[in-house]
Amino acid sequence: MSTTVSAINPTALSKRLDRAAAAAASAGVDALLMAPGSDLRYLLGAGGGSFERLTCLVVPAEGSPTLVVPKLEAPGYAKAPIGELGIDLATWVDGEDPYGLVASVLGKPAKVAVGDVMVALHVLGLRAALPAVEQVLAGPIVRELRMRKDAEEIAALRAAGAAIDRVHARMGEFLRVGRTESAVGADIAAAVVEEGHAVAEFVIVGSGPNGASPHHSLSERVIEAGDVVVIDIGGPLPEGYCSDSTRTYVMGEPRDPDVPATYAVLQEAQQTAVDAVRPGIRAADVDAAARDVIAAAGFGEFFIHRTGHGIGLDVHEHPYIVGGNDMLLEPGMAFSVEPGIYQPGRWGARIEDIVVVTEGGVEPLNTRPHDLVSLPTR
Amino acid sequence: MSTTVSAINPTALSKRLDRAAAAAASAGVDALLMAPGSDLRYLLGAGGGSFERLTCLVVPAEGSPTLVVPKLEAPGYAKAPIGELGIDLATWVDGEDPYGLVASVLGKPAKVAVGDVMVALHVLGLRAALPAVEQVLAGPIVRELRMRKDAEEIAALRAAGAAIDRVHARMGEFLRVGRTESAVGADIAAAVVEEGHAVAEFVIVGSGPNGASPHHSLSERVIEAGDVVVIDIGGPLPEGYCSDSTRTYVMGEPRDPDVPATYAVLQEAQQTAVDAVRPGIRAADVDAAARDVIAAAGFGEFFIHRTGHGIGLDVHEHPYIVGGNDMLLEPGMAFSVEPGIYQPGRWGARIEDIVVVTEGGVEPLNTRPHDLVSLPTR
Repeated sequence: MSTTVSAINPTALSKRLDRAAAAAASAGVDALLMAPGSDLRYLLGAGGGSFERLTCLVVPAEGSPTLVVPKLEAPGYAKAPIGELGIDLATWVDGEDPYGLVASVLGKPAKVAVGDVMVALHVLGLRAALPAVEQVLAGPIVRELRMRKDAEEIAALRAAGAAIDRVHARMGEFLRVGRTESAVGADIAAAVVEEGHAVAEFVIVGSGPNGASPHHSLSERVIEAGDVVVIDIGGPLPEGYCSDSTRTYVMGEPRDPDVPATYAVLQEAQQTAVDAVRPGIRAADVDAAARDVIAAAGFGEFFIHRTGHGIGLDVHEHPYIVGGNDMLLEPGMAFSVEPGIYQPGRWGARIEDIVVVTEGGVEPLNTRPHDLVSLPTR
Repeated sequence: MSTTVSAINPTALSKRLDRAAAAAASAGVDALLMAPGSDLRYLLGAGGGSFERLTCLVVPAEGSPTLVVPKLEAPGYAKAPIGELGIDLATWVDGEDPYGLVASVLGKPAKVAVGDVMVALHVLGLRAALPAVEQVLAGPIVRELRMRKDAEEIAALRAAGAAIDRVHARMGEFLRVGRTESAVGADIAAAVVEEGHAVAEFVIVGSGPNGASPHHSLSERVIEAGDVVVIDIGGPLPEGYCSDSTRTYVMGEPRDPDVPATYAVLQEAQQTAVDAVRPGIRAADVDAAARDVIAAAGFGEFFIHRTGHGIGLDVHEHPYIVGGNDMLLEPGMAFSVEPGIYQPGRWGARIEDIVVVTEGGVEPLNTRPHDLVSLPTR
């Protein structure tokens, strides 16, 4: 039911709505049907609503948008510049058919694009109300806008990067031998908020063997001297733009003598990928830049995920830095560069920075050192 | 990305999977395709996953289930009794086609049911991979199982009820004259977690006139002596089952002399509805039991919502205790009984208990007194 209102001004939102309508038209889509989520927030500066009641911003290729919203949830959009943006409001109450309402707003479309995050409950409800209308995903259309950040968005991401860097800078306060990952994670989560985030969306503390699972979150495992510990943290600032940064720490001296040499390979791989970022390079080539270094050192089988993901109002968005993605990077695109080496049953390591493509090359938004950081064991 | 693992034992989960398959068969559906969410957690005892990578539990009407999950997210399901449940694991990595993988697991179905919370990204992805296959919603099928709680679920709801009762018992620590609703709400949220919840999913502090809006959450209004204050709080325990309880408080003596008599009507209405709960009664009749008492006293126009909602892994689920719902209540059904009287511009009051239908009648899971609780003004 909560509605986040971004700091984006109505003029910028108006431009985005116009570009979204134009993108819909050139995609041969009669209208975008956007459900609450980041795409809606990008277009409207707000985006809340319950799961079971349909809230849907209808953005026609021609004409003015309409926000279909449950009457009792409409107050949540009071702060959105609905009027300034020339958006019509169409409210409904329990017992009425919201899908029929969307259909009446649409007129007679041939093809609509539904927001990627719209739940099946509503996707199938709309399909039943508009049985002859082809449904496609709106993500690929809106993504083309969201992938290319404007100066305001880059500034917001820069602020998010600085905020999460401040948390990593304080890691010695939290990450101590004898504490559980959960206890460390709770302190980190509090610090993520203290340093300016709206919420600690994710906190990964992967100690020892747990670090070998890239998406391990927290456990009751007690941190031991000699552990290598992967710390991956981030979340949105109040304006909605997200941070995401990983550093790898070691408690005193690494127990496993292979750690320094293996970590050096990872560090070279991450730097090589960052250095490869520039306008005109393929996303897949940035992935390959990191992967080749790791594979050449014989660790290829232990790098089990893509090199990075775009970031903005979502922690994970386009462009994805992954093999097979031939997209040519452009100035304003922001994404993570986060290779990792994960040796099952032993330990894992990952280095993650958010970077933005500039006219001249690349600007890292995380600036903490990349070295394996040794923390005192007492 | 976090995966919640419930305390439900494999035997109970195995029964649920069998009943889900049978329900799918009797609904003429070849398979249930469950996305991460409450329905999946109900069937698997776990349910996490990222938005953009498909995680899907395939429950065929005939044969053993398969969990399609990204390889890097599979560890999140390590604690789920996949093996004990005879569930096959089908992992995929970035670059592979997860929808084709689901299609290959399914064979040649005619009709599949997708989870209500599956996002359009995956609903349309599956539609493209299975163009000839009819998609329906799985919610109405799984709902029939989830509505009827087993002993373990009732025990979990009982624990949740006791946890939220402990917070109401401490209300005098938080709710004080001179504090804002927001400040009181923040303390309550912390207490909700302290008393054993995973998160304070909702905290409503409706003081004075704000109490007359059932959907009010928190504001900067300062609590005054004589205010009537509606406190509606709850959320899930770590095992996933939710609490939800409302009590109404008054700061010292009520400013409005009508409060005692009006509150007495509400208290009688709530008790009458609870006493009406038994196997075989219609949900609508429980709603009417509360509504009739309030209407007879002349406050009918001020009771502006349904009497209750089912509760379990979701705070709001079936059965809904609302006029027009002819469903006959059965042992094991759990729901709220929460009539309210809301006089615009003046004050509001609500009493909410979670109750479970037993063979013999009803068991309330919240046991705090129903009286208007007067808190000291200094």
